[in-house]
Amino acid sequence: MRLDGRQIDELRPFTMERGFAKFAEGSCLIRIGDTHVLVTATVDDRVPPFMKGQGKGWLTAEYSMLPRSGRQRNQRDANRGPNGRSMEIQRLVGRVMRCATNLESMGERTITLDCDVIQADGGTRTAAITAAYVATIDAMRWMVKQRMIRDILIPEPVAAISVGIVRNVEVLDLDYAEDSTAQTDMNVAMTESGKFLEVQGTAEAQPFSAETLGKMLALAKRGIGTLIEMQKTVLESD
Amino acid sequence: MRLDGRQIDELRPFTMERGFAKFAEGSCLIRIGDTHVLVTATVDDRVPPFMKGQGKGWLTAEYSMLPRSGRQRNQRDANRGPNGRSMEIQRLVGRVMRCATNLESMGERTITLDCDVIQADGGTRTAAITAAYVATIDAMRWMVKQRMIRDILIPEPVAAISVGIVRNVEVLDLDYAEDSTAQTDMNVAMTESGKFLEVQGTAEAQPFSAETLGKMLALAKRGIGTLIEMQKTVLESD
Amino acid sequence: MRLDGRQIDELRPFTMERGFAKFAEGSCLIRIGDTHVLVTATVDDRVPPFMKGQGKGWLTAEYSMLPRSGRQRNQRDANRGPNGRSMEIQRLVGRVMRCATNLESMGERTITLDCDVIQADGGTRTAAITAAYVATIDAMRWMVKQRMIRDILIPEPVAAISVGIVRNVEVLDLDYAEDSTAQTDMNVAMTESGKFLEVQGTAEAQPFSAETLGKMLALAKRGIGTLIEMQKTVLESD
Amino acid sequence: MRLDGRQIDELRPFTMERGFAKFAEGSCLIRIGDTHVLVTATVDDRVPPFMKGQGKGWLTAEYSMLPRSGRQRNQRDANRGPNGRSMEIQRLVGRVMRCATNLESMGERTITLDCDVIQADGGTRTAAITAAYVATIDAMRWMVKQRMIRDILIPEPVAAISVGIVRNVEVLDLDYAEDSTAQTDMNVAMTESGKFLEVQGTAEAQPFSAETLGKMLALAKRGIGTLIEMQKTVLESD
Amino acid sequence: MRLDGRQIDELRPFTMERGFAKFAEGSCLIRIGDTHVLVTATVDDRVPPFMKGQGKGWLTAEYSMLPRSGRQRNQRDANRGPNGRSMEIQRLVGRVMRCATNLESMGERTITLDCDVIQADGGTRTAAITAAYVATIDAMRWMVKQRMIRDILIPEPVAAISVGIVRNVEVLDLDYAEDSTAQTDMNVAMTESGKFLEVQGTAEAQPFSAETLGKMLALAKRGIGTLIEMQKTVLESD
Amino acid sequence: MRLDGRQIDELRPFTMERGFAKFAEGSCLIRIGDTHVLVTATVDDRVPPFMKGQGKGWLTAEYSMLPRSGRQRNQRDANRGPNGRSMEIQRLVGRVMRCATNLESMGERTITLDCDVIQADGGTRTAAITAAYVATIDAMRWMVKQRMIRDILIPEPVAAISVGIVRNVEVLDLDYAEDSTAQTDMNVAMTESGKFLEVQGTAEAQPFSAETLGKMLALAKRGIGTLIEMQKTVLESD
Repeated sequence: MRLDGRQIDELRPFTMERGFAKFAEGSCLIRIGDTHVLVTATVDDRVPPFMKGQGKGWLTAEYSMLPRSGRQRNQRDANRGPNGRSMEIQRLVGRVMRCATNLESMGERTITLDCDVIQADGGTRTAAITAAYVATIDAMRWMVKQRMIRDILIPEPVAAISVGIVRNVEVLDLDYAEDSTAQTDMNVAMTESGKFLEVQGTAEAQPFSAETLGKMLALAKRGIGTLIEMQKTVLESD
Repeated sequence: MRLDGRQIDELRPFTMERGFAKFAEGSCLIRIGDTHVLVTATVDDRVPPFMKGQGKGWLTAEYSMLPRSGRQRNQRDANRGPNGRSMEIQRLVGRVMRCATNLESMGERTITLDCDVIQADGGTRTAAITAAYVATIDAMRWMVKQRMIRDILIPEPVAAISVGIVRNVEVLDLDYAEDSTAQTDMNVAMTESGKFLEVQGTAEAQPFSAETLGKMLALAKRGIGTLIEMQKTVLESD
Repeated sequence: MRLDGRQIDELRPFTMERGFAKFAEGSCLIRIGDTHVLVTATVDDRVPPFMKGQGKGWLTAEYSMLPRSGRQRNQRDANRGPNGRSMEIQRLVGRVMRCATNLESMGERTITLDCDVIQADGGTRTAAITAAYVATIDAMRWMVKQRMIRDILIPEPVAAISVGIVRNVEVLDLDYAEDSTAQTDMNVAMTESGKFLEVQGTAEAQPFSAETLGKMLALAKRGIGTLIEMQKTVLESD
Repeated sequence: MRLDGRQIDELRPFTMERGFAKFAEGSCLIRIGDTHVLVTATVDDRVPPFMKGQGKGWLTAEYSMLPRSGRQRNQRDANRGPNGRSMEIQRLVGRVMRCATNLESMGERTITLDCDVIQADGGTRTAAITAAYVATIDAMRWMVKQRMIRDILIPEPVAAISVGIVRNVEVLDLDYAEDSTAQTDMNVAMTESGKFLEVQGTAEAQPFSAETLGKMLALAKRGIGTLIEMQKTVLESD
Repeated sequence: MRLDGRQIDELRPFTMERGFAKFAEGSCLIRIGDTHVLVTATVDDRVPPFMKGQGKGWLTAEYSMLPRSGRQRNQRDANRGPNGRSMEIQRLVGRVMRCATNLESMGERTITLDCDVIQADGGTRTAAITAAYVATIDAMRWMVKQRMIRDILIPEPVAAISVGIVRNVEVLDLDYAEDSTAQTDMNVAMTESGKFLEVQGTAEAQPFSAETLGKMLALAKRGIGTLIEMQKTVLESD
Repeated sequence: MRLDGRQIDELRPFTMERGFAKFAEGSCLIRIGDTHVLVTATVDDRVPPFMKGQGKGWLTAEYSMLPRSGRQRNQRDANRGPNGRSMEIQRLVGRVMRCATNLESMGERTITLDCDVIQADGGTRTAAITAAYVATIDAMRWMVKQRMIRDILIPEPVAAISVGIVRNVEVLDLDYAEDSTAQTDMNVAMTESGKFLEVQGTAEAQPFSAETLGKMLALAKRGIGTLIEMQKTVLESD
């Protein structure tokens, strides 16, 4: 039994709120347990210098936590300088979303995904990916209306979730308390058809076996399926 | 008549939501028109070096805008380096709230007010001050429960609003469109009893007369009165 | 009676020395009491990117204190990073001088005002504005000679001074000792005809009433009148 | 057949040179194909602030590329500011080596692993981990001699290698040319007994299936086995 | 014949003004031709961390140019980041003055020499050294009065000057126009008794012979003698 | 007798290894005693903005030490910010090599010399210059093959060495132990024909006489001659 009473394969309660940021081309506030992440998608009519002249689009992400998103206040990135963890996460989000997107048909445009953590209780990077899919779809619908592109350029839904080993048991969707004591921590991003976009498994306390790896991947697949159901529901509403 | 149909002495519709950030000692999300600012108050059990050994408390503020809070995306402070405007605003918020607070009775503790602009449509700095009062009161109630202080250390409510001259007329609570074309822009922070904490009037297009100054101050007083009514209402609810 | 024997409406002794910096298009070293500020005006044949193509000019200011300008040595800005106070002051000087100037007729040129505090004893920002007027006029005379502009583009003289409340009395032109203990601190920039360019009043110890505000503004007007007399005198000499 | 004639499960030729940096407590220059990485281990008699008072040790890594390590010159980190990729890699190396090490028995000491890429032709991060094991063992032998610790604190050898999918085939140890065109890129760090320390699989061009994941992990295990043989050989020599 | 009519062994006209900065423990504004440098000496009652516990004093220097000290405006160090030239010069000034000073008898105190270039027309670094001697002597006289030290801790006067090869002729005290076209540029710091503290000769256009080196050193010795006469005169006054 | 048994006019054992960095246009690893410096030369098909349109080439250098190149670990430049010593050295290397090179005939191209210290035991800056000559010649041979230039653009070999006064005796090629206790430290860069490119003599403990200067220059000339012999030998080999 887990600390908050969940089953080992049970997600925390979650919601996704489209259009939370009025001025952005797409946006989604995801709340999964006490983790709340706002993702906005901004469409820009140019690509970075290294992409120029190729006729293709680009997609990038930035990630930051509000100072008091967690139990303790953290200094702002602007004051403490480069933050390795934030950079690693924003590279992950950008990479996953680029791979999921058909950039060839986007023209020389950039979608910037700003992932700002309003409240943090574990799993912010996977929540960011899950919300990024919704925000990006909305931005692409806007692009279709503007006749920038013909169709939505993400062929199938994408979501992500964390899994791990807590007190020797494989569990789904770790909150902060579980994450702090996890022996292994793993983040998985997957498409609706069950293909991997990213697998990042890290042994924290001790190395893990191939069998354990298999169990964790199965849990992740299940959780991602549930999240994708919700994405489809909120994207159907007007 | 104003662009959005308001009277010259009419505020935009507004709400204040206490406790929006679960983990902070105090927090308030203020929405005034399309300007949305989240202020969290963090209580820290020490003061900065220059305050040590005086037995008094300290209060400071930080201000930042989410990249896509506005109509166009702005670079993050962390990436573009020092931002004069943000620094000026956070100095203003800290100064006003310190003057309103009885720091002598707070012990060697610091309250940090993080003002993060979720959406920006003019008047973010005055909205931040108005929400900061609510967040600080909540943090002080928490301090009273923790027996850190005996009573609330802000003797009377504090709020702030902008006024200005738009097309030769003095108006209250400028939105972004009005602010961009204002001939004069003024921010006023005031206590419930009508005393000034800060008066900042800036001629943008041409100098303004003493008579005009008087009219703007009268408008500000009226708007601040209305905001303080709402602060008192939300602070009465549980 | 004030500490240095001045009347409450009396300025410190002051001088303005034109052409102190030989290589600049305009320059003025102002000394008011022990506050000495050198302002140089540099004319540049282009405008910043955000102003390009509008056919108008731009004016900007930078402010810095020499490390040993004060009673104690301060670290250089270059070593300690962004300095909120300096940024706020340079934004103020730039804003006031832009509003006073007819930028439309300047062509796509920039005037940069460098305000470097050689010695600091209170009132450096208002001294900077007062000297900036002289340096800018000299730079404009140079521009007229170069046939860049036809006439001087500042219609009437501009100066600034501080006022405040010290031991419950409104006083003019605070030195550092007074400023440190002032209950309220106010900076006023005004034109010769008595119109406001900037009013910045800050309650330091306790809020101030509307009546007090009125008295401070009257003192400021008087002091600014005296400074403008001197500006006119030094600008008449060769 | 691969571009350089290797089999799909064949490593590039490699060597490990212990003691390349005379002044360090441990060091290893690994050369695998044209990828050359120097790892030095520095022993410090204290831990970072967040670890103080716990009686445990700490291990951290830094990663950097010489500007002309690659086919084109890159700007130095010192000149271009924070570098997301470098930070991500140094976090990975530190994490893996910490998990492999019994920090509890190290006392309040820090081992810093500096990973400097002299020449880069793909696989620098896994080469860094493989060399880090050798450098750390040497540093621990020095610590044993200094009577700082009783025994070597890494229970079993650790190495890492990259695998990936190139032109639809799973291959071992990608060089730069292969890496640039890989559909999937995966880095695996493993112990001698076949347990995972880190699994990082990234779909670059398209998502990959569970079956493909399995094949890549098998290749990685094989390559890591070969590298560990060499580590043991060089550590046996004097 | 030189451009400004000077002989090849003739200094530009120069003055030294003690006490230009009222609040500093020592200060000197040196003007040599159109090069004007203000040096202030600040006495601090502690030494940097690496000097602690040795019972000795420390002396350090910082150098900066006002943005409009020259014919064209330069960006401030604070805005453009690390400036190699400034760092090199401040290291030079600190090194020379430390070598000239008996730091052993100074107690654990630091003298900081701030060298700020008000106007620049060549030779700012040697002017800074020459003025630094005067400012330091004044600061030491203050220290004697404060009973921090018993005697002045610089045994003999120190000054510096530039020499160089301009149009194939060795000349003394190059101004900016000469310096820009010099084939060789050399800075020499020397004591009154003719011993070298620093010799820095740089071939700009082509290598120079040993014979030329000898001629330049002789010129430098002569110029330094004249400067030391003036230092002694201004230090006798008061 | 010196600590390591050398004669006062004896260099440490040294080697130069061409082509150590495979991907660079030219490179040389110099080892002189325990000082090991890798210099790579990168050819770029453009010049910096301030050189554009003059039809001439440019040459610049960067210098950095690996964190554990010395007996103690130093923080990376990227983490600690501007480093005065590194900047001074890279300015020296660039200046010397530019003066030695006929940039007029190079076309609008830049050669960047990266000097990375692998191991540091005194004399890194002079070793960098000596290796830079070899790397630059190799880069120029590559440029000749690419038909970018017709001939090698350095008319005669260039090398550099340190000399100094240790325990009252003039010695050649100081190692770290000697350098730390030297009374005077001097770096000399010279051409094969005995002309000076740079002379930098610094009194550390006490001023030095003209006679001493002469002895040191003679020692330097001798050491440089030996180094140039070796440069010519390694450049003759294929």
